[in-house]
Amino acid sequence: MNEEFFTADYHDDAELVVVGIPFDGTSSFRPGSRFGPPAIRNYLYGIEGWSPYQNRDMAYYSIYDYGDIEIPFGNTEKTLDIIGDTLNPLFDADKKVISLGGEHLVTYGIIRSLVNYYDNLTIIHFDAHADMRDEYMGEKLSHATVIRRAGEITGFENVYQFGIRSGTKEEWDFSKNYCNFYPFNLDKFFEVIETFSEDDPLYVTIDLDVLDPAYFPGTGTPEPAGISTKELLKAILALNYKNVVGADIVELSPDYDRSGASSMAASHVLRELSLAML
Amino acid sequence: MNEEFFTADYHDDAELVVVGIPFDGTSSFRPGSRFGPPAIRNYLYGIEGWSPYQNRDMAYYSIYDYGDIEIPFGNTEKTLDIIGDTLNPLFDADKKVISLGGEHLVTYGIIRSLVNYYDNLTIIHFDAHADMRDEYMGEKLSHATVIRRAGEITGFENVYQFGIRSGTKEEWDFSKNYCNFYPFNLDKFFEVIETFSEDDPLYVTIDLDVLDPAYFPGTGTPEPAGISTKELLKAILALNYKNVVGADIVELSPDYDRSGASSMAASHVLRELSLAML
Amino acid sequence: MNEEFFTADYHDDAELVVVGIPFDGTSSFRPGSRFGPPAIRNYLYGIEGWSPYQNRDMAYYSIYDYGDIEIPFGNTEKTLDIIGDTLNPLFDADKKVISLGGEHLVTYGIIRSLVNYYDNLTIIHFDAHADMRDEYMGEKLSHATVIRRAGEITGFENVYQFGIRSGTKEEWDFSKNYCNFYPFNLDKFFEVIETFSEDDPLYVTIDLDVLDPAYFPGTGTPEPAGISTKELLKAILALNYKNVVGADIVELSPDYDRSGASSMAASHVLRELSLAML
Amino acid sequence: MNEEFFTADYHDDAELVVVGIPFDGTSSFRPGSRFGPPAIRNYLYGIEGWSPYQNRDMAYYSIYDYGDIEIPFGNTEKTLDIIGDTLNPLFDADKKVISLGGEHLVTYGIIRSLVNYYDNLTIIHFDAHADMRDEYMGEKLSHATVIRRAGEITGFENVYQFGIRSGTKEEWDFSKNYCNFYPFNLDKFFEVIETFSEDDPLYVTIDLDVLDPAYFPGTGTPEPAGISTKELLKAILALNYKNVVGADIVELSPDYDRSGASSMAASHVLRELSLAML
Amino acid sequence: MNEEFFTADYHDDAELVVVGIPFDGTSSFRPGSRFGPPAIRNYLYGIEGWSPYQNRDMAYYSIYDYGDIEIPFGNTEKTLDIIGDTLNPLFDADKKVISLGGEHLVTYGIIRSLVNYYDNLTIIHFDAHADMRDEYMGEKLSHATVIRRAGEITGFENVYQFGIRSGTKEEWDFSKNYCNFYPFNLDKFFEVIETFSEDDPLYVTIDLDVLDPAYFPGTGTPEPAGISTKELLKAILALNYKNVVGADIVELSPDYDRSGASSMAASHVLRELSLAML
Amino acid sequence: MNEEFFTADYHDDAELVVVGIPFDGTSSFRPGSRFGPPAIRNYLYGIEGWSPYQNRDMAYYSIYDYGDIEIPFGNTEKTLDIIGDTLNPLFDADKKVISLGGEHLVTYGIIRSLVNYYDNLTIIHFDAHADMRDEYMGEKLSHATVIRRAGEITGFENVYQFGIRSGTKEEWDFSKNYCNFYPFNLDKFFEVIETFSEDDPLYVTIDLDVLDPAYFPGTGTPEPAGISTKELLKAILALNYKNVVGADIVELSPDYDRSGASSMAASHVLRELSLAML
Repeated sequence: MNEEFFTADYHDDAELVVVGIPFDGTSSFRPGSRFGPPAIRNYLYGIEGWSPYQNRDMAYYSIYDYGDIEIPFGNTEKTLDIIGDTLNPLFDADKKVISLGGEHLVTYGIIRSLVNYYDNLTIIHFDAHADMRDEYMGEKLSHATVIRRAGEITGFENVYQFGIRSGTKEEWDFSKNYCNFYPFNLDKFFEVIETFSEDDPLYVTIDLDVLDPAYFPGTGTPEPAGISTKELLKAILALNYKNVVGADIVELSPDYDRSGASSMAASHVLRELSLAML
Repeated sequence: MNEEFFTADYHDDAELVVVGIPFDGTSSFRPGSRFGPPAIRNYLYGIEGWSPYQNRDMAYYSIYDYGDIEIPFGNTEKTLDIIGDTLNPLFDADKKVISLGGEHLVTYGIIRSLVNYYDNLTIIHFDAHADMRDEYMGEKLSHATVIRRAGEITGFENVYQFGIRSGTKEEWDFSKNYCNFYPFNLDKFFEVIETFSEDDPLYVTIDLDVLDPAYFPGTGTPEPAGISTKELLKAILALNYKNVVGADIVELSPDYDRSGASSMAASHVLRELSLAML
Repeated sequence: MNEEFFTADYHDDAELVVVGIPFDGTSSFRPGSRFGPPAIRNYLYGIEGWSPYQNRDMAYYSIYDYGDIEIPFGNTEKTLDIIGDTLNPLFDADKKVISLGGEHLVTYGIIRSLVNYYDNLTIIHFDAHADMRDEYMGEKLSHATVIRRAGEITGFENVYQFGIRSGTKEEWDFSKNYCNFYPFNLDKFFEVIETFSEDDPLYVTIDLDVLDPAYFPGTGTPEPAGISTKELLKAILALNYKNVVGADIVELSPDYDRSGASSMAASHVLRELSLAML
Repeated sequence: MNEEFFTADYHDDAELVVVGIPFDGTSSFRPGSRFGPPAIRNYLYGIEGWSPYQNRDMAYYSIYDYGDIEIPFGNTEKTLDIIGDTLNPLFDADKKVISLGGEHLVTYGIIRSLVNYYDNLTIIHFDAHADMRDEYMGEKLSHATVIRRAGEITGFENVYQFGIRSGTKEEWDFSKNYCNFYPFNLDKFFEVIETFSEDDPLYVTIDLDVLDPAYFPGTGTPEPAGISTKELLKAILALNYKNVVGADIVELSPDYDRSGASSMAASHVLRELSLAML
Repeated sequence: MNEEFFTADYHDDAELVVVGIPFDGTSSFRPGSRFGPPAIRNYLYGIEGWSPYQNRDMAYYSIYDYGDIEIPFGNTEKTLDIIGDTLNPLFDADKKVISLGGEHLVTYGIIRSLVNYYDNLTIIHFDAHADMRDEYMGEKLSHATVIRRAGEITGFENVYQFGIRSGTKEEWDFSKNYCNFYPFNLDKFFEVIETFSEDDPLYVTIDLDVLDPAYFPGTGTPEPAGISTKELLKAILALNYKNVVGADIVELSPDYDRSGASSMAASHVLRELSLAML
Repeated sequence: MNEEFFTADYHDDAELVVVGIPFDGTSSFRPGSRFGPPAIRNYLYGIEGWSPYQNRDMAYYSIYDYGDIEIPFGNTEKTLDIIGDTLNPLFDADKKVISLGGEHLVTYGIIRSLVNYYDNLTIIHFDAHADMRDEYMGEKLSHATVIRRAGEITGFENVYQFGIRSGTKEEWDFSKNYCNFYPFNLDKFFEVIETFSEDDPLYVTIDLDVLDPAYFPGTGTPEPAGISTKELLKAILALNYKNVVGADIVELSPDYDRSGASSMAASHVLRELSLAML
C-alpha cells in the first residue's frame, strides 16, 4: 500500500533503493533502534508522497523498498559483512541507496563497501555526538567509534561534521584537528555545502539525534540543545544538485516516543532526502 | 470545580458556551480525538483562569460548559445532524460558541449551521493539512475534505488558510487558486487579520496540529516543521476586537501524549481564545 | 560507576555536594517529582562529564553524591526540618550544595537553613509559575507558596524572578510590586546578572518547568510558551564567576516523559550548573 | 519473512485465507481495534509455526495472508459491503477464511455473506458481552448489536454463546430465551461441541475479551472474571474434526497493552485455530 | 451521564452515598492513588449497571455520587479531619457510605468517625499487606499503620484480615496474636462471614492489592501470589444480607495500568459491593 | 537502603553473592533485559526482606550485592569471558551465586565456569521456550541455543526442563529424546526434585517467561498458557534442603511492563530463591 512512495516492484527498475538495517547491537545506553525501519515505513501512511518544499512527488520516481536485511544478533562483525554483501550488488548496478538504521555503526559497513566505488568519497555527518572515539568499552566497532573508523578509510580530511554537541575532550580535539568540524548547529553548513561541485561524491549520514529532543525524543541518547526539524529539512534541500551517492538515516528508536512524532519526522527526512537525491 | 473557568450554571446566562464534540469517526490514520474534550477540561485544573497575556480572567465572564454531545459512532451523517441540532438553539439565542473536537470534520457540521445566521461568514483556518480534498477513500465527508465542504458553503474566497504544510499537489493548487492561502507559517496572518473590520463575522477553526509536534505531539497526524505555541497564542491575541462569532479547537488526541503537555496547550488555547472572543 | 561525575568518596573531600530530596508531598495536580533524583543520576550515564560549552570536566573537580535523604511522607513540617538537619553540617563545612528535587517546596527548607550563613542572600528564581501565593488550599507550606515563604525570610527585594508565565492576578501584582520581576522569558536576565558582584551571595533555584514543555514535558504542570533548553544553559553559563553559594534543580517528574528527554535535560542542567559553580 | 506461517503466494493456492479487517468505527468506549491485524502479524515473528499442542506446523499447510482490506472510515454500511465483496470470491472458491478484526461488527458483514453458501449455519460465539441489543445509541449496526443482527439471519436457535458475563437484563433474557446460552465460562462448551456432526457448518467468532483481562488487557472493554488463555486454547483444540467453515478473531486493541502479551495471545489463537480448521 | 449508576440527585434522597477521597499523601513507594476515584467513575461508562451475578441493577436503587472531597496535600492530620467532617453528616442521616480511595490511610479517618455510631464495629479487611506497623518511617499515620490505628479504636478482636501475604515478622506476629488473621487467600472467609448475624455492624475495607497483580497491576505495591477478581467478587456476594454499614475501596493507582483493566475491576467491585449493601 | 536485603559490605563476608549481568545482545525479537538487574534492586524497596512463606528474613543472612558487571555490547564472546572472569573468584571462594539477567545466554557463561567446580552438575531449567536449537540465525551462541550449549558441557542426561511450551519440532524431539523433559507445567517437578540427594549439585536457571504473561508480561517473548507466580514460588520452596550451588533469574525486561508487577515478581523470586539456597 506504500506504492505511492515505493513505486518500483524490483530493485532492477529503481533509481533509488531503500534498505532497512535493523541492527542495534552495540547500543550501550538504550537499545531499540532495530525497530526504526518498520516505524518509518508505517508512518509514511500518515504523510503524502508530494513535498510542498520541493514541489515534487515520490510517485514520479522509481524507488524500491528492499525491506529489512536479517541481522545475526550478537555478532557485530558478521552484521557488517552482511551489510556489505547486501549493498555491493546495488552499488554494482549503480543504484543510489538510502539505508535506514538501526544504530550508527551500520554506516561503517556501508562506507567500507562504498569506498570501492568512489575516489575521494566525502562524508557529510549530522549528529549530536562526535562518534570519534578510538574504542568504546574496549571495542573498536561501536556506535561511539563509527566516524573514527569511517574516517580511517576515507581520510579525515574528507569528513565534515555538523551539529555535534557532545563528546569527550579527546574526541572534540581530534575532530577539530583532523576533520572539518562545525559543532553545535548548522550555521556553516549552507556555505560549506556550496564548496562541493556537482560531481564530488558525497555520502550523507544523518544521526537523527542531531535534532533537539523537543523535535526528536525517540532516540537512544537524546542530547539537549540541538537543531530543529525545519533546519534539518532545509539542509537536506540544499543537497539538491549535489552528487549524493549514498545516505543513511539512523538512530530512530520509536518506542521511546509513543506519540509517533519522531517516526513522523524520520519519514519526512526520508521523503525529502529521496527527492533531493533524485 | 471548574467554576473558575465555567462561571455560568446554565447556557441561558452565558455569553459564551463551550461544547464538547467527541467524534473521531473518519480518522483514517489514528483515532482518539474523541478523548479531547474531557482532557481539556481536566487540564484546566492545572492552570489559572487569569491570563497574564491579556490581563483578564475567565472568572469575570459568563461562560457555560455544555458538556459533551452524545455521538452515534459509526454514523457520520447523523453525527453532523446532531451537531446542528445542538448548536442551532445556541446560535438562535445569540450565544458565541467554542466547540472542542474531536476530529476536524465536526467543523462542517458547525459551519452548515452557522451560515444560516451570518452573511459572508469568513473561515480563518489554522492547520498543518490543507483538508481540501474533494473526497478521501471514496468519502465526501472526512477530516481530509472538511474545508473543501465548508468552503463550498461559504465560498472559497472567504476561506483563509494559515500554517498548512502538507497535502496533495491537487489540494495545494486548489487552495492557491481559490482560497487565501498562506502556507508554512503565520508570517502573513497578522497583516491579513487587520483587513477585517470589527463587524465582519469570522469563524476560527484551529486544528491543533498546526503546532509543531515538539509543542503538540498529542494528535493523530503530527506533521513536522510547524509553528510554536507562542506563535499560536500570539495569533489568538490578535483576534481581540475582531468579531469572532464561533470557533473550534480540534484534533487533540490526548493518549498520544502521556506527558499531558498537549492537553495543557489545548487548555491554554481555550482560555486565550475565550478571553479574546469576549 | 558515576565516578566520572561524582569524584569524591566522602563529602569532607568535596567542594560541591549533590543532595537528592525526593519529596513531592504538596503536589496538588500530579505527583511524581520524588522520582527525579534517581532519574537524573541514571541519565548521567548517557552523557559525558566534559562540557563542550565550558570546556571543563566534572572529573577534574571534587564532587560528592550524598544520595537521597529519607522523607517521612505525609509530614511536611518534619520533611523541611530534615532538609535543614541534612544541609546545616554541609554549610558549616563550607560546602557548596546543589539539591535535586523533588518539588519546589524543598527550596524553603534550604533557604531557611542558608540564611543563617549569609547576609543579604539573593534568590535567583527560574520558573513558569510565580509560586507567590500566601496560602494554597488552606496551607501555608506548598509548592505554590514557596517563593512567598522564602522571600519573607530573605526580603522580597532580594528575590529575582525570571521566565514566570502563570499565576493568579494577586501573585502577579505582588511580584511586580515587591520583587524584581522579569516574566515570560530571560531577555533581561543577562543584564541583571551582571549587576551582582563576585561576592554577592546568590541562591539559584531552577524550577525546570521554566522550560517550554517541548523541551521538558516531564513535569507536574507543563506550562506552554516557555524558554528553550539552550536559553537555560546559556543563563547558567552566565553564572560563572558569580558567587553561587547554593542551588536547586526541582520539579523533574520523569514518569511523565517516557522518552527520557526531560531527565537528560535535567542531567545537563546539573552538569553545567556544577561546573559554573566551581 | 512470515513465510513459515503464510506459505501460499496467492489465495488461489491456499486452503485457508487470513483477511485483516481493520475497522473500529462503532466502538463507543475506546477505539483502536483497527490496529489489531498488523499487531497479530507482527507478533507471529515471536512464535513458532509449530504447535506443541497439536503437533502440527503451519508451514505444512497452504495458508494465504490476504492483507488488510481498505476501510472507508465513517461509513459503516459501505464497510460491511466491502467485507462481503472481499469474501464472496473466496467463499465462491471454497476457501476457508479467518478474519482478523477490528471490532466485532465485522462479523455481521461476514455472516451476511456466508449464509448464502451454507444452510443451517451455526454461530459459535465466545465473548464477555452478549452483543444482543436491538439497537445501541440509536444505531442498528454496532459492536453491541452484532450477534442480534447475525442471529436474525441464521436463526437464534443456531446461536451458541459461551463465556458471556456482561449485558443488560434485556440482552440476558433474550439470549436465555432464544439462543443456546452458556454464560460465565466454558464449562458446557466441551459437551455442547460434541453434539455437532463432522458436516454441520460452524462459524466461530472469538471476541478476545472473552479472556480475563489478566490474560488479555489489550481490548476496548476489558471485563473482569473471564476465562484463561489455556481454557480458550483448549476449546479451540476441540474444534478439530468439526466443520468450521469460517471464523473471526476480533477486538484486539494492541495499544492498550504495551507489553505485547495480548497480541501474542491473539497470534496463538490464530495459529491454533488455523491448524484446527485444516 | 452516569445516571444509570448514580440515580440520586442529592444525598438526602439516597440510601447509599459514594464519596471520593483522592488522598495519597503517605504513599512511600509510588504515589498516584489520588487518581483512583475519577478513574472508577470513568470506567463505569464501559460497564452495565445491571449485575448478572446478583441479577440486580444499580438503576433501581437510590445512590448518590458525592464527588471528591478536596485534599490539602501535605497535611495528613487535616485530611483525616476533613474526611470526618464530610462523613459525619452522612452517618447522622443514616446513609450507607462507600469511600473510594486514595490510599489506605483514609480508612482511619472513616473508622474514627464511624465508631461513634456503632458499638462493636467489626472491620473486615482484604489486603496483600498487614498494615499493622506501629509506625512507619517515624510516622504514626501511614498507609502501613492504618489497621493498627483502626484496631486501637475498635479493638483488635474485632479486626478480621484476609488475603494478607506481606509484612514484617512483627506485624505478622501481632496479627496472629491479636486479630482474626487468615492470610494468603480467602479460603476461610466464607465460613467466617457466616458467623456474623444480620445485625452485627460490619465495616469492609478492600485494599485492591489483595488481588494478584495479574488481575490488578494498577496499584502502588503490586504483591504477587494474590487472589483473582472472581474470588473477590464471590466474597462480596457473600456480604448480601449482612449488615455492612460502611465500606471503602482503596489503592487503585490507574496510571500504573494503562490498559484500564485495573480501573475496570475496581468499577466492578464498586457495582457489586453497592448492590450487596442495598 | 537495600541493606535489609544485602547485608554484607563485601563479598568476602557473604555466603551468597548476587551479580547483575545486564546483557541482551542476542535478543532477536525485543531487547531490554539489560535493564533487568536495576529494576529488581529497585523493586526490592517495595517488599519486605522477611518471607511469610519461609518465615525467614534476608536480614539474618550474609548476602552481598556485587552490582552489575560491565558489558562490551556487540561482542558476545567477550561478554561470556567476562562472566567467567567475574564468577571464577567467587566460586573459588566457595560462594553461592545468583546471577540476574539479562538474557538467557548468560547462563552459558556461568555453566562454563561452574562445571570446573562440580562433577555431575545438574541443570534445573524453568522456561517457556526449549532454548535447544543448535544454531539460531546462523549463530551458535544465542538465547535460543543456550540450553543446547549448556547441555553439551554437562551432558543432556543432566538437564531437567520444566514448563516448556514453545519450540520447533526439532527442539521438542531433541529434548524428549536426550533430556528429562516435563513440558507445559510443573506437575512433575515436585516429584522429580525429590529424587536428588542433599549433596547433588544443582544449578537452577529460571527464565521468568516460564510464568504466564498474565503474571509476567515484562519479558521479550511473552508466551501464553504458562504457570502462575504462586506455582513458581512453590517450586522454589521445594529447593530448600537441596544443594543449589548456583542459580540465575533471567529475561525480565522491565520496560515492557510499566506497572512494575513483573519487576515485583522477579524481586520475590530473588528473595525466595536466596532464602531457599541459604
